[in-house]
Amino acid sequence: MDVGTAIRTRRSVRRYKRKEIPDGTLRDILEAARLAPSAANRQAWEMIVVKDPGLKAELVPLCKNQKFIGDCSAFLVAIEDPSQRWSRVDAAIMLDHITLAAHEKGLGTCWIGAFDKVQVGSLLKVPPNKEIMACLTLGYPDEDPDARLRKPPEELFHVDHYGRRQ
Amino acid sequence: MDVGTAIRTRRSVRRYKRKEIPDGTLRDILEAARLAPSAANRQAWEMIVVKDPGLKAELVPLCKNQKFIGDCSAFLVAIEDPSQRWSRVDAAIMLDHITLAAHEKGLGTCWIGAFDKVQVGSLLKVPPNKEIMACLTLGYPDEDPDARLRKPPEELFHVDHYGRRQ
Repeated sequence: MDVGTAIRTRRSVRRYKRKEIPDGTLRDILEAARLAPSAANRQAWEMIVVKDPGLKAELVPLCKNQKFIGDCSAFLVAIEDPSQRWSRVDAAIMLDHITLAAHEKGLGTCWIGAFDKVQVGSLLKVPPNKEIMACLTLGYPDEDPDARLRKPPEELFHVDHYGRRQ
Repeated sequence: MDVGTAIRTRRSVRRYKRKEIPDGTLRDILEAARLAPSAANRQAWEMIVVKDPGLKAELVPLCKNQKFIGDCSAFLVAIEDPSQRWSRVDAAIMLDHITLAAHEKGLGTCWIGAFDKVQVGSLLKVPPNKEIMACLTLGYPDEDPDARLRKPPEELFHVDHYGRRQ
């Protein structure tokens, strides 16, 4: 799937088939994260790949009861290092790479920003000097979501100076 | 170009031909940003597209003298809204979308994190309640950079619990 098509057709998926991802497929998708660019090539992020069904079930109430977290094949937890200025951005870049790489392979993703940082961190044994930045569900879609509307270009882009629309 | 190939072959480009981007091509690349997902679909970012050669030349000394900023076709300045919790991440996602969409079209990009936020903001008339998050050069490559080494997977990924490598 070409990049333009992936960008145009990718949607957030919130219903998943209960199905394991073959190891090779998961490895390919994580490789997209590993290859992502980062500030000064520091790759100031880590990721916990939660595959254990019991753990995924425990995560649901810690993530505002978003039940589909229990159904996805892997719950990806992006860890940032608050001592590194660009860590959060590095982590966002690699998660975005994953959303597109997964879509190309027929897998869906959904960014998860609503979670109890302390409780999820404690459950997954995240050390105190690291922080959970965001999470991503990854799995086989059990729905075909509609496109969400986006803002028109004139609300987003300026030319040469802020406020100049050309 | 398929997504996997784009991710594997994309490099940061720091030498550019002095050449304008056709309007249609630039529009397509910016469309990749506009379609990018964001927290609660808020798209809490804006972008200044600097095309004016005089302005690009003025930006060079404000960005640690990275001379190639003066040569790129467009200098993209991502603006975040510090009052929005996910604004920085939204902006990172849409810039990442651009790096891949540009690469597919044969254009190069380089993330720019070294800039004087206050002076660049003043030059480009960024209002005081907004902040520059990061910038991106965009243009026609005049080099063929080698791949940068990345960390091995075992330094990045944990399974089920932090510290567990499987």
